[in-house]
Amino acid sequence: MQLSSFTDYSIRVLIYLAMLDKDELSNIATVSEHYHISKNHLVKVVHKLGQLGYIDTIQGKNGGIKLKKSPKQLNVGQIIRQLEPLELLNCGASFCHISPACRLKKYLIDAKNAFLNELEKYTIYDLINNNQKLLNLL
Amino acid sequence: MQLSSFTDYSIRVLIYLAMLDKDELSNIATVSEHYHISKNHLVKVVHKLGQLGYIDTIQGKNGGIKLKKSPKQLNVGQIIRQLEPLELLNCGASFCHISPACRLKKYLIDAKNAFLNELEKYTIYDLINNNQKLLNLL
Repeated sequence: MQLSSFTDYSIRVLIYLAMLDKDELSNIATVSEHYHISKNHLVKVVHKLGQLGYIDTIQGKNGGIKLKKSPKQLNVGQIIRQLEPLELLNCGASFCHISPACRLKKYLIDAKNAFLNELEKYTIYDLINNNQKLLNLL
Repeated sequence: MQLSSFTDYSIRVLIYLAMLDKDELSNIATVSEHYHISKNHLVKVVHKLGQLGYIDTIQGKNGGIKLKKSPKQLNVGQIIRQLEPLELLNCGASFCHISPACRLKKYLIDAKNAFLNELEKYTIYDLINNNQKLLNLL
């Protein structure tokens, strides 16, 4: 049970951008260097976060990336729900032939929702609020 | 976010054995055939379930495998807790340098516990209880 590195990197990008001053721009190269994540991965992550309306990309010489919404509007549970493949087991009938009658699927869906409901209590702001220690590390 | 196939197969073996009559024995070849899971995988799964005290292996010509405890004593959440690697993100400081100050780790641990607490409401008995449809599929 592990979140994908795509989700991991996405949250880290959002944390990074949330630590910047309002309207300050960053770029993929800088974020890549800070986290030691390959630029290729981050291009895909930033593209997806743009599609989902979390990140604005400003084109041009003085362009860059920044959050499109305030960190208080970025809900951690909702972000994970949007980014992460959440099928806990491969329960398709062609894969497991007790699937049509198995009750485990329903219980796993309830458990997944309990997991996401817990994370929906928090925003990206909660991850960085008042966190001078985090600022020093960035 | 996916459970490992090892956990998946383990639960399916326990479901299978729980459907048998009391003291009826099965064996790896039969379970393998029913679920179309390779014997090699099941040997490891059955060995682990034996180590954890869930399965008894009876040696000899008329030997086989059976549950060591009643299905009502086999808690789904506890089984997953024992079998599944539950580190949701690779948060080691060598991997992510904001790790020492990141609050996400704590929130993920809470969310993971919410997930497991939900599954701890159920036993293997709850997965098979009164489930004639499941019996027909096995």
